Amino acid sequence: MSDILILHEDQLRQRIHLDAETISVIERGFARLAEGGVEMPPVLSMHMPDVNGEVDVKTAYVPGLPGFAVKISPGFFDNPAKGLPSTSGLMVVLSSETGRVQAVLLDNGYLTDIRTAAAGGVAAKYLSRKDASRAAIFGAGLQARMQLQALRLVRPISEAMIWARNPAKAAKLAAELDGDGLSVRAEPDPGMAASWADIIVTTTPASQPILRADWLRPGQHVTAMGSDQGGKNELDPLSFDRADLYVADRVSQTRSLGELEAALSAGIITDTTEIPELGQIITGQHPGRTAPDQITIADLTGTGVQDTAIATHALAAFSKDHPNA
Amino acid sequence: MSDILILHEDQLRQRIHLDAETISVIERGFARLAEGGVEMPPVLSMHMPDVNGEVDVKTAYVPGLPGFAVKISPGFFDNPAKGLPSTSGLMVVLSSETGRVQAVLLDNGYLTDIRTAAAGGVAAKYLSRKDASRAAIFGAGLQARMQLQALRLVRPISEAMIWARNPAKAAKLAAELDGDGLSVRAEPDPGMAASWADIIVTTTPASQPILRADWLRPGQHVTAMGSDQGGKNELDPLSFDRADLYVADRVSQTRSLGELEAALSAGIITDTTEIPELGQIITGQHPGRTAPDQITIADLTGTGVQDTAIATHALAAFSKDHPNA
Repeated sequence: MSDILILHEDQLRQRIHLDAETISVIERGFARLAEGGVEMPPVLSMHMPDVNGEVDVKTAYVPGLPGFAVKISPGFFDNPAKGLPSTSGLMVVLSSETGRVQAVLLDNGYLTDIRTAAAGGVAAKYLSRKDASRAAIFGAGLQARMQLQALRLVRPISEAMIWARNPAKAAKLAAELDGDGLSVRAEPDPGMAASWADIIVTTTPASQPILRADWLRPGQHVTAMGSDQGGKNELDPLSFDRADLYVADRVSQTRSLGELEAALSAGIITDTTEIPELGQIITGQHPGRTAPDQITIADLTGTGVQDTAIATHALAAFSKDHPNA
Repeated sequence: MSDILILHEDQLRQRIHLDAETISVIERGFARLAEGGVEMPPVLSMHMPDVNGEVDVKTAYVPGLPGFAVKISPGFFDNPAKGLPSTSGLMVVLSSETGRVQAVLLDNGYLTDIRTAAAGGVAAKYLSRKDASRAAIFGAGLQARMQLQALRLVRPISEAMIWARNPAKAAKLAAELDGDGLSVRAEPDPGMAASWADIIVTTTPASQPILRADWLRPGQHVTAMGSDQGGKNELDPLSFDRADLYVADRVSQTRSLGELEAALSAGIITDTTEIPELGQIITGQHPGRTAPDQITIADLTGTGVQDTAIATHALAAFSKDHPNA
């Protein structure tokens, strides 16, 4: 009836994981973005206030890849009260040659979780000190767990602290993650956790800063990945003054959806033309961190090129399994 | 494995047709848009010049409907040389309560064809003279055929002329459509066809006007539905001066994607604040045509609310067939 491949969440969970391979896939995606030729339009975002919901649509076309993804990401924030996760959605893969639908990946957001965490791994790989062993994670949700996992794939992380607004959740997550060569504990004082760490990852939906600039110390790397909508803000805008290097996943996105928004509003940043993007660090177009005592910040809002990278990777993996699929 | 309904093109073709019911579905969609509360963000549009392709994503949330559609419409213009249609795509229906994916309608653009033609029917129903019996169709593609079919559902059309840049195509289509109570012939002179008709429908991808203002006569209604991208233009901008009433499907779209764009560029229209939308005519918020000798123009660029209307209608039809689907 149709040669469109339909893949369900459980199939994708069995086959695609957060590992060195998916980090490499996302790394190449960012590199391609920096090399030029990629088309990545602004995110389509629709808010539905009467049902406390929103939907984002992201896409990117990468010349040379056989397909491109269009991702539909709903967030319905009354879902937890109904026993459902807030986020779900799917990715559609279209042929780069004909535009025909090749596959529908009914992942309920699983591939987004993977590509988002993988981007955190890529940021740490290129911006943190090579000897970084201490991680502070702000937040206690799924990305808190996955960002820590991603860090361990690129840096010799041996200790971690979890801070969350809800201390019980932080304690629960710390207990779950502790072990397997990693010492994890919940820390009720966010300043203590921040100052102690080599790498700080903020993973919250905060609309007021949760990381103060005066907690930062030389040599640290910060990845802020919680903000993906206008009005969200995890980092004290003064962090931009403290940092030696600020890197965006995509400047055109971070200026309206990421941490850059608040820094621009506060007048801490006035000119965005010289801000490097993560892909430019990967390709060497920008030197990135040039000294061990520098403070670096990566601002990740989530990009369509990550979606196209992970979706085409997943599709290739299944096509390999079933060459006639 | 999943309770997501996957519907294929052949299933949708068997069950959903251009008829009084689908015209009514689209009519209600436009009315809801005028009544307020509908969220309809700007179209996401991505161009891929190196493969002569583009993809548009449209969506709209209509309070009260159980779901909303996100439609992905690719257009790859080298496809015909490969034996494939230029357009394809699908619609995803998400729950208005939870955002969860309810259905994937793998229609390859079929539902778009239906909802686009149905909008032409709605425009004619509300703007053309009730006794309109002569239709001139500009263009000889799928929408030329379907727009004429839609007119017949709302007006006593007994004669039609087809004009197209390619006379052979016009002749072929006229021969196919002639009969069944309708006299159809190809007309090589577009001015002759235009002046003769009660209703003119332009269905072309023209980027230079194909309908001259001085061909228009009192009492006529014009529906321009070919333009859906910046730079497309079917109507002589002077038509706006000749017309007594110009109606947009959505002003925010027609000003950049429709006929209004050229009229604004030419300075024929300078103020868009008083332009009525089709839904406002349907609901009576605007009187529409008030005299038989007026000239009216409808500018249809295609809206997300039409996609949500047709997709939720299709899903409801199948859910009725298979209550446990």
